[in-house]
Amino acid sequence: MTDETVVGRLAVEFADIEAAARRLAGVAHRTPVLRSRSFDQLTGAQVYFKCENFQRVGAFKFRGAYNALTLLQPAQRAAGVLAYSSGNHAQAVALAGREAGVAVTIVMPMDAPAVKRAAAQGYGATIVEYDPATTDRVVLSHDLAARHGLTVIPPFDHRAVIAGQGTAAMELLQEQSDLDMLLVPCGGGGLLAGSAVAAHALAPACKVVGVEPAAGDDGKRSFESGVRQSVQHPDTIADGARAPMLGELTFPIIMRHVHTMLAVEDTALLRTMFWIWERMKTVVEPTGALGAAALMNGMIGARGMRVGIILSGGNAEIAGLTRRFPALAESPGV
Amino acid sequence: MTDETVVGRLAVEFADIEAAARRLAGVAHRTPVLRSRSFDQLTGAQVYFKCENFQRVGAFKFRGAYNALTLLQPAQRAAGVLAYSSGNHAQAVALAGREAGVAVTIVMPMDAPAVKRAAAQGYGATIVEYDPATTDRVVLSHDLAARHGLTVIPPFDHRAVIAGQGTAAMELLQEQSDLDMLLVPCGGGGLLAGSAVAAHALAPACKVVGVEPAAGDDGKRSFESGVRQSVQHPDTIADGARAPMLGELTFPIIMRHVHTMLAVEDTALLRTMFWIWERMKTVVEPTGALGAAALMNGMIGARGMRVGIILSGGNAEIAGLTRRFPALAESPGV
Repeated sequence: MTDETVVGRLAVEFADIEAAARRLAGVAHRTPVLRSRSFDQLTGAQVYFKCENFQRVGAFKFRGAYNALTLLQPAQRAAGVLAYSSGNHAQAVALAGREAGVAVTIVMPMDAPAVKRAAAQGYGATIVEYDPATTDRVVLSHDLAARHGLTVIPPFDHRAVIAGQGTAAMELLQEQSDLDMLLVPCGGGGLLAGSAVAAHALAPACKVVGVEPAAGDDGKRSFESGVRQSVQHPDTIADGARAPMLGELTFPIIMRHVHTMLAVEDTALLRTMFWIWERMKTVVEPTGALGAAALMNGMIGARGMRVGIILSGGNAEIAGLTRRFPALAESPGV
Repeated sequence: MTDETVVGRLAVEFADIEAAARRLAGVAHRTPVLRSRSFDQLTGAQVYFKCENFQRVGAFKFRGAYNALTLLQPAQRAAGVLAYSSGNHAQAVALAGREAGVAVTIVMPMDAPAVKRAAAQGYGATIVEYDPATTDRVVLSHDLAARHGLTVIPPFDHRAVIAGQGTAAMELLQEQSDLDMLLVPCGGGGLLAGSAVAAHALAPACKVVGVEPAAGDDGKRSFESGVRQSVQHPDTIADGARAPMLGELTFPIIMRHVHTMLAVEDTALLRTMFWIWERMKTVVEPTGALGAAALMNGMIGARGMRVGIILSGGNAEIAGLTRRFPALAESPGV
């Protein structure tokens, strides 16, 4: 009897990630891996940045969304799908729908940035707006889905979504199989769970570390207590990591295959983000800089190690962030 | 009798670029080539971006500087070198000196940004400051060089510098040999001349196009008149393209192997630069966006063509530029 059978079967296995990679070939970008001598010098590690900010729609989310759409039954494909999000997941489902020939409805708050609404419409999605002061988006979405026979594509707690997200770490480990550690941003845990399954299969000695914003450290508290904890409306600039809790599917995977969880304060996060912009010439969004910030701030020992970091997305409002945080933006040096 | 013998021998031949590439192997980065579906859609071309913003010191300048230092005679190496610049050339010579084991003196105006002085010092260079109101930097530099036996490394009008800069286009054309056009930023013409020699050898049908800021269009006027023209202190944001005129060595190469010269207004240039930051998630400096801006603004027909663009550098002051040009930075969309 193996350990696997003792603790039960996880929702996603490495074969699911391999299958997702085959579906994504030629549709998603195989994103580049960047190095930075300055970052290596500052941290004492050899760091490999997997640049999902260069992924389609500017974030890893396209991987999971497209994988999920290709796994729909014919009747589901014909009826169309729905996603509720004003962030990268919405864009990802909208573009995946266009690529897969599936009609997409996106439920967005009426105060969502016009540029995000326009982008989703540009991919051919139908936008349904709601007033967040009076309407619960989950209720509205499931009501819409039931009435029109739409399949809801959740942002993280879904087998095909998790498997798709795992292809980013899989690509990185195929190129660099000797990593000692892999740092992964964590919101609802889709990317982290997928990465952990990929690393367990391809580099069992590689320690996978999840990184959250400090204000939304529900994942860290869940991991440490062994029971899912939640957080309501965390006040953090890392808008991609504001999910109230880990998923029913992602949590057991994270408990099994993740080494530890870290939480980074927003100031440190922003400082690292601006540093990456200025010094590495690559634009990451706040959430995308979580892994790099944990290492840059010495939250985990990595001297002499080979470390992978997933830069999960690049959809930053550059002008807005520099205006809001002028002191951090002007002198991002360490 | 070939055409070459009729018009005389150029200062740099392709063999010089090949030799430079061998010297640079393992020292300079072989920078990545990025694509952008959005840029392709907007321009109707298939565009290949050679990302010299990811080069060491954040600009192509490291290629030429390092190549020049490796070609010094032993006595010159022992005595050290001097460069006068407050821009990318200074950083490039400083780092090249450290890598090649050659002492470097940088002559900088006393009002140069502290971060630039610190960076050159960080590479081990000695900084000599001067007051630009009272001192001519060329006179000061040549006086210093004569007194201390230093070799001056000029920013563009130097055979080894031109040959080194040509390795960027050489790498691009090795990966993508079927380009119809190659757009290259032009200040003093070192990068443009090197690129033109590389393209002439590797892809003779590829039209090489130089792009300048409109306020500093001396190169365009020189190209069109056949006589070198100059411009004094051009008022342009493209600080890497403010050289007063093309070089004695670069001009004949440009006349022979460049197809045409274009000049871009600063507003269009900045709009393209911010667009590249936001949409391509890569930080270019204003000068680095010249080629992309020419294409984005329809200054040359490229529909259906395969086009290479050299993103020449990424040393942008992100916070400062967004603060100076808020309207352009907020909505870089086209």
